[in-house]
Parts: sequence; C-alpha cells; structure tokens
Amino acid sequence: MSESLFMKLTEEPVKEIDRLIIEQIKSPIELLNQACYHLITAGGKRIRPRLMTLITGLISPKDIYNENILSLAAAVEILHTATLMHDDVIDEGLMRRGIPSTNSAFGNKVAVLGGDYLFTKAYNATIKTTDARISRTFSDALTTLVQGELTQMSNTANLEVTEESYFKTIYSKTSVLFEITTKIPGLVLNCSDAEIESLAKYGRNIGYAFQIADDILDYTSDSSVLGKNIGRDIEEKKITLPLIYTIHNRQGISPETVYAAINGNDIDAIIRLINETGAISECDRVADRLIKEAIEAISIFNDSEYRQALGELAYASYKRKY
Amino acid sequence: MSESLFMKLTEEPVKEIDRLIIEQIKSPIELLNQACYHLITAGGKRIRPRLMTLITGLISPKDIYNENILSLAAAVEILHTATLMHDDVIDEGLMRRGIPSTNSAFGNKVAVLGGDYLFTKAYNATIKTTDARISRTFSDALTTLVQGELTQMSNTANLEVTEESYFKTIYSKTSVLFEITTKIPGLVLNCSDAEIESLAKYGRNIGYAFQIADDILDYTSDSSVLGKNIGRDIEEKKITLPLIYTIHNRQGISPETVYAAINGNDIDAIIRLINETGAISECDRVADRLIKEAIEAISIFNDSEYRQALGELAYASYKRKY
Repeated sequence: MSESLFMKLTEEPVKEIDRLIIEQIKSPIELLNQACYHLITAGGKRIRPRLMTLITGLISPKDIYNENILSLAAAVEILHTATLMHDDVIDEGLMRRGIPSTNSAFGNKVAVLGGDYLFTKAYNATIKTTDARISRTFSDALTTLVQGELTQMSNTANLEVTEESYFKTIYSKTSVLFEITTKIPGLVLNCSDAEIESLAKYGRNIGYAFQIADDILDYTSDSSVLGKNIGRDIEEKKITLPLIYTIHNRQGISPETVYAAINGNDIDAIIRLINETGAISECDRVADRLIKEAIEAISIFNDSEYRQALGELAYASYKRKY
Repeated sequence: MSESLFMKLTEEPVKEIDRLIIEQIKSPIELLNQACYHLITAGGKRIRPRLMTLITGLISPKDIYNENILSLAAAVEILHTATLMHDDVIDEGLMRRGIPSTNSAFGNKVAVLGGDYLFTKAYNATIKTTDARISRTFSDALTTLVQGELTQMSNTANLEVTEESYFKTIYSKTSVLFEITTKIPGLVLNCSDAEIESLAKYGRNIGYAFQIADDILDYTSDSSVLGKNIGRDIEEKKITLPLIYTIHNRQGISPETVYAAINGNDIDAIIRLINETGAISECDRVADRLIKEAIEAISIFNDSEYRQALGELAYASYKRKY
C-alpha cells in the first residue's frame, strides 16, 4: 500500500497533522503524556487524517495546508484515539496496534482518564474554529458513537439481528466518524449543501466498507494478524454481516442449523457454513456496490489526482489487511 | 438545611433545571436512560445548579429563569454527574448517594460509556449558547478536572505533599467546577471582567471549603454517613489537609512519628495524632478565612436576599454533613 497514490499525496500533510496531534494533547502531567503518546504514536494508519487531506484536495488543492482543516484532522484522530482507549477498557482488550493497550500498560484508571482527556482536547480544537456547525457536527458524532457502542451491547446474544439493524449499528460505530471526516473540509471551505451531502455519502460508505472488511477478517484471518482471537465474536454472540448472510442464505440451509452452530460455539461448523452459503461473496458484492456509490457521489467534483486517490482509497478500505 | 434562605430561593428554579437535565440527556437507547437517570435522580443536593441560580439573582434577579443560564446549570450538573460516574469506575466505588454506583448496578462498560455520553450532552448544551468563551470555559475546566485526577494518582503514596500542592490538587478536583458555575452567569449577563473575577473567586473558595470539609469527614464521621470506609485514604496514602497539618504541627510531634503511623496503616494512632496536634482546628481556621474572602469578593454587588443566601451557602459548604 505504501506506493499508492493516496499514501503519496497525503505523506507530507500527515506529518504536519501528527505534529499538531502531539502539540494539542501535550499536558503538564507526565503520566498523561506517556499514556496518550503510547497509543497515538504506535503507528496507526492515520486513515482519517489522510481522508481529510484528500477531500480538501478534491475541493481545493491550494487548501491542503489550511490551518483549520489540519487542526480538525488532528482533532478527529484524537477523538478516534479516545474511543479506542475506552473501547479497550470496556472490552478488556490487551493489545492494540501490536503493542499493549493503554489499560494493560497503564491500568484502567489511566485509560479511562486518558480517554476523557483526549475527548476534551478534541473538543478544544473544534471550539477554536468558532464555527458552531463544526462543534455541533463533532458533538453529535460523539453522541452517536457512544450510543452505537451501547446498542451493540444491547444486541449481543440477539441472533435475530437484521441487515438493516447491522448497518444502523456500524453507522454509529464506524461510519459516523468517517462521515464527519469527509464533511468537515466541505464545511470549512464553504461548499454547497449538495456538495457537503456528497462528501458525507462518500465518507459514510467508506466507513461501511471498512467495517464490513473488519467483520469479515474475524472469520478469515488468523489471530496474529489482528491480535485478537478468532471466534471471540461468536462467543459473545455478536452477529455481523457474514453471519447474517449465512443465516439468511439462498442455499436452503435452515437458519436453525446456523443458530445451532452459533449457540454451540462451534467455530469449525460456522466457518464451514459461511463457506457453503457463499456469505463472504455476498459481503463482497454489497461492499463493491457501496464503494461504487461512494466514488459516484464525489464525481460531481472536477477530476484530479485527489479524486483518483479517493477512488483508490475507497477500494483499499475494503481490501485492507491490517 | 431545608429551611435555609438559599434552599428557599432556589427551590423553583432547580425544579426547572432538573426538568432540563432529564430532557437534555434523554436518549433513544433505553439502557443509557436507565443508567443515567439512576444516578442523576438519586437525590444529589444540586449544589452547583443552586449556586448558579443564586449568582444570577445576585447579578440580576429578573434573569433567574434566563434560558441560557438554566440550560448551562443543567450542563454543569450533567458534567458533574459524568465525572462521578467515571470516578466510581476508577475507584471501584460501590455506593454513591446511598444507592449502588452506576458501575455496580450496570457494570463498568455502561458506566464508562454513560459518562462519555453525559460529557457529550454537557458539551451540546454549551455549544448551543454560541458564546465561544463559555464553550472554552467548560472545555478548559474539564481538562483541568481530568488532569487533577491524574495528579492525585501520581501523588498517592507521596507523604511529602505540601499545603500548596494540596490546594493545587483540590482546585483541579473540585474548585474548578465551582468556579465555572459562578463565572457562567457573569459571562451570560455580560458582567465586567472585575465582576467576573469576583464571582470566580467566590466559587473557587467555596470549592476549597467544600473539599476540605470532605477531607475532614474522612477522619471524623463514621462509614455509614459517607458510605465509604474510614481509613481508605490512609491505606492509599492519600495525604489531605488534616494529615498535612498533623505532619507539620506546632506541638513538637516529629513528622517521623506521623509518617510511622501512616505507613503502618495505624488508624487509631493517626486519629489520636490529629487530635493532639489540633489539625482539625487549623483546617477550620483556613476554611473560615476562605469563606470570609468569598463573601468579601461578592460584596461589590448590591446587597440583596441573594447575596445573603450566598453568604449562608458559603458557611454551609463547610458545615455540610452529607
């Protein structure tokens, strides 16, 4: 992926955004710096900052280093990091980005307070813009994110999850943050409402594809790739798209057969059923449609290398192996 | 306390603020409502909303029901509740306000996410005001609060805590939220900088007195009053003002004698040393000075029943038995 156009176009701006992240979260409390830098410098792919840079280039290449946008890109990444920190407390996650999670390295106290601290720092950056639409967009997104986590918790052990409620959950969990990432440059650069909605749609769909890819990896990768155990979702009865398509298949396999495998935590049987029903291919088809719609949405902007890179990124969001 | 002037003057506005709190935090997720209402309706004294009402009356009695101020009073109480929810996760607190804490009633996951949710709702209210000074005041206060918690953690087991660093810690932990509570009506009602600083000083000092009273209660009340164990602070080597004055006493008792009692978790010896050194009387003198300064600070406003009530409240903040 390192030679792709979207990595090349975003390399320098992301360095600047990384500098701003470190600057914005710096605290007089050494323990807080250690805990926050631990996770934030652990080499995430900075997919959201890259996306914000490319969208800015799509709208107006001369604004790639617009200070407001760079600062808000840092804020989105800080917000994302805050949610990861609290997620790991909640899920008792031990590893993150190949290193010990904040809670396992510094304890739950520091991880809870560290996440709170990062939330306040993300807000600080949005308040600085003095554009109430942007603070509001951020604040609403965070409300949606938190509600999404709780919806997912409430849905655990509910085998009757539909495709529709799955998409609603992953909207809250993942898409909403991609959506504000792609909307914000449109707000800062005063795009029309129609343009902002197109940018939002691009981000939303990329978020869906990204999350579906993640949910597929639970059934197709080995644990060393993701640093989490295969089958954990099944143990928790977390029903994601591959399982939904396995349950509602067109091969005449009864839902009860699939439920029995899930309820019995029979991972081998589940993997076999996923393969027999072609559920992964069905996920591929849906993701492909979402990606094409995303690319179509931004075709109202002039063609440019940024638009090409966003096309590439759209496909890469689903093919990712990290 | 139920017949005091400050309770009487704030009774009706607080009902309205309570209504706004419920309205502002309402979520489509039933589990979230249950968890948030559980703590917020458990009968806290609403000291911050009352304070904000009285300060508003001090500045301009006709603005008691100013919509912005009522909404921000709700936000301050929501923010306070969020910090309690996370504090109980961090300290593994089992009881709060005489009922099971959010974490013990709903689990850590819900308590972490519930606190996050309440933070976003508090911010939402501040963003609505479209006054960047207010959002900024809120955001900075929350940063200070979180840093304060972490400073306290870093200082645990440090017996050399000075009076100065104690006041710095309780500023972050308690005073800062009182300070913004008393500043906000001044900001909304366009007071002069000097008036705003006087209001801030009143709030700050009340916060100090409030926290000192809390720290004294650890050594003078029985566990049923506070629902937490006496001696817990000592086990954690949390050095608060009564102990600082015991260590640095004028009775010729050596610091080493006190350190030995602390290090040995010898609660009886510590209580005896606190009594012999007159440390509690010294706390009383300091609190009395802080309260008088608070009352002096707001004497630049016209005398009124609100100013009298604020005088009452200043003394009550230290005498509280709840």
